Amino acid sequence: MIDRLVAKIQETGAPIVIGLDPMLKYIPGYVKEKAYKEYGETLEGAAEAIWQFNKEIVDHTYDLVPAVKPQIAMYEQFGVEGLKVFCRTVDYCRKKGLVVIGDIKRGDIGSTSEAYAVGHLGKVQVGTKSYAGFAEDFATVNPYFGSDGVKPFLDVCREEKKGIFVLVKTSNPSSGEFQDRLVDGRPLYEIVGEKVAEWGSSVMGSSYSYVGAVVGATYPEMGKILRKIMPKTYILVPGYGAQGGKGADLAHFFNEDGLGAIVNSSRGIIAAYQQENYAKFGEGHFGEASRAAVEDMKADIAGALAQALA
Amino acid sequence: MIDRLVAKIQETGAPIVIGLDPMLKYIPGYVKEKAYKEYGETLEGAAEAIWQFNKEIVDHTYDLVPAVKPQIAMYEQFGVEGLKVFCRTVDYCRKKGLVVIGDIKRGDIGSTSEAYAVGHLGKVQVGTKSYAGFAEDFATVNPYFGSDGVKPFLDVCREEKKGIFVLVKTSNPSSGEFQDRLVDGRPLYEIVGEKVAEWGSSVMGSSYSYVGAVVGATYPEMGKILRKIMPKTYILVPGYGAQGGKGADLAHFFNEDGLGAIVNSSRGIIAAYQQENYAKFGEGHFGEASRAAVEDMKADIAGALAQALA
Repeated sequence: MIDRLVAKIQETGAPIVIGLDPMLKYIPGYVKEKAYKEYGETLEGAAEAIWQFNKEIVDHTYDLVPAVKPQIAMYEQFGVEGLKVFCRTVDYCRKKGLVVIGDIKRGDIGSTSEAYAVGHLGKVQVGTKSYAGFAEDFATVNPYFGSDGVKPFLDVCREEKKGIFVLVKTSNPSSGEFQDRLVDGRPLYEIVGEKVAEWGSSVMGSSYSYVGAVVGATYPEMGKILRKIMPKTYILVPGYGAQGGKGADLAHFFNEDGLGAIVNSSRGIIAAYQQENYAKFGEGHFGEASRAAVEDMKADIAGALAQALA
Repeated sequence: MIDRLVAKIQETGAPIVIGLDPMLKYIPGYVKEKAYKEYGETLEGAAEAIWQFNKEIVDHTYDLVPAVKPQIAMYEQFGVEGLKVFCRTVDYCRKKGLVVIGDIKRGDIGSTSEAYAVGHLGKVQVGTKSYAGFAEDFATVNPYFGSDGVKPFLDVCREEKKGIFVLVKTSNPSSGEFQDRLVDGRPLYEIVGEKVAEWGSSVMGSSYSYVGAVVGATYPEMGKILRKIMPKTYILVPGYGAQGGKGADLAHFFNEDGLGAIVNSSRGIIAAYQQENYAKFGEGHFGEASRAAVEDMKADIAGALAQALA
């Protein structure tokens, strides 16, 4: 799957992943009204609004980008109804040819991580049959438990040719509270980065590993160091746009081949119509606003990369 | 909710939580056969088997213990059907008067953690209405993101009078890979423990905080130190029984008032009938086997506590 992701990035020329994190406040009023009219102001109604919203955005952008990253929390907050739409979104995106990164940030002791790995990337056995509970191509994983908690994901990745992105340095302001603490004079995120490279070396694609890393766009200097520590690791970079990361900051996350990183934008794309730059589209054309935002982001990153690699 | 948990621990004399982590291999053959006959070897069939299994165990033990801890991964691996049964289990246990600790180990950047907090402990707004997506009393939380990732849980806990248990030192063999690394000469889990005490000081119940901690039974010496660092923090102790923790190890996790800790057992209770000690019950009486295992665990812990506090 990492080979497919790399191929799709090269094909589209866009190292971009759209974060499908549909908060209700991002969804145009008329979409919500229609859904509530049909299902009431219920969890089903919210789920229907999210589905219609996602579908419109995917339909307007799937040919421009290699991948989407639905954040499961935004669905899970609506309970089972929300998770049904998470599934439906994953399936729809895969049918559209997109690589789907499930932003689930799971991680637990071995036997429990195995259940998460099976549920999100593999197949669960029921008697003589097997089923994919959720069917993402990649999943994000929390490393706090150490190797035991990651290994079951590696096993499923190897079997299913899928991948993970392990949290190394997260994009949020307080990420340093634990991640930056010095261990033998070096920040913890470097120690985690080394482990990610080690885990990844056992499950290699043709040029990059099945095991990627999450490093926030908001910390470009750290990205520079982590890029060197994990040369064969694809870096998923959240925090572009709304969280403050800029195109020029991103060059550090890439290798000299122009590969090695994929940048996520959520709000900046899916709620583009609410921003001054794209307000001209109007809420009735929110999908087109998202498409324009993707095109601008693509140009921003391409410009920064061209400058850095020149 | 922490006050209610403490009261229920005192009432039952059992600082025990039953881990409802129903792997299919723990479920008696006749329960699975019946479910598959009705729903086929499908995700629905697996979910029905889990539901019947859980119900039987809860019906045989709810009067002995204060709380249950369903591990969501064991449900999530069966996709939406599994999560429906997670919900059903949570609701059933609450109706039986049990405190429900959702073992979800979620944690993310602020806005995302807010969605998890709302979805599992609070209520989500849909137009003019609000709904509980899942409705646990407590949830477990991963601290890797630092304060930003925990604060939304604190806000919801304050509002809803619910609680969380933050991972400090996990029970698995590789937990030391990152958690034990020395920061200024002290292991990271102590730094996390201090933060847990700090977070907890802002949301206090009458004697303990709404913010608890997870510390594995497999690391009793560390439990001793963490007990002192977090005096007002309830400690949820996994790893008893199947993972190797023994009654005598547990005394360190308690305060001198005999409170301050609650010990989880999953396999050891729910799959008791598969163990030599309880094989005499036979799989047809697996609920009674679980009840006997709870009674033995209660005596084991009471003995260890009596010895330690004597």
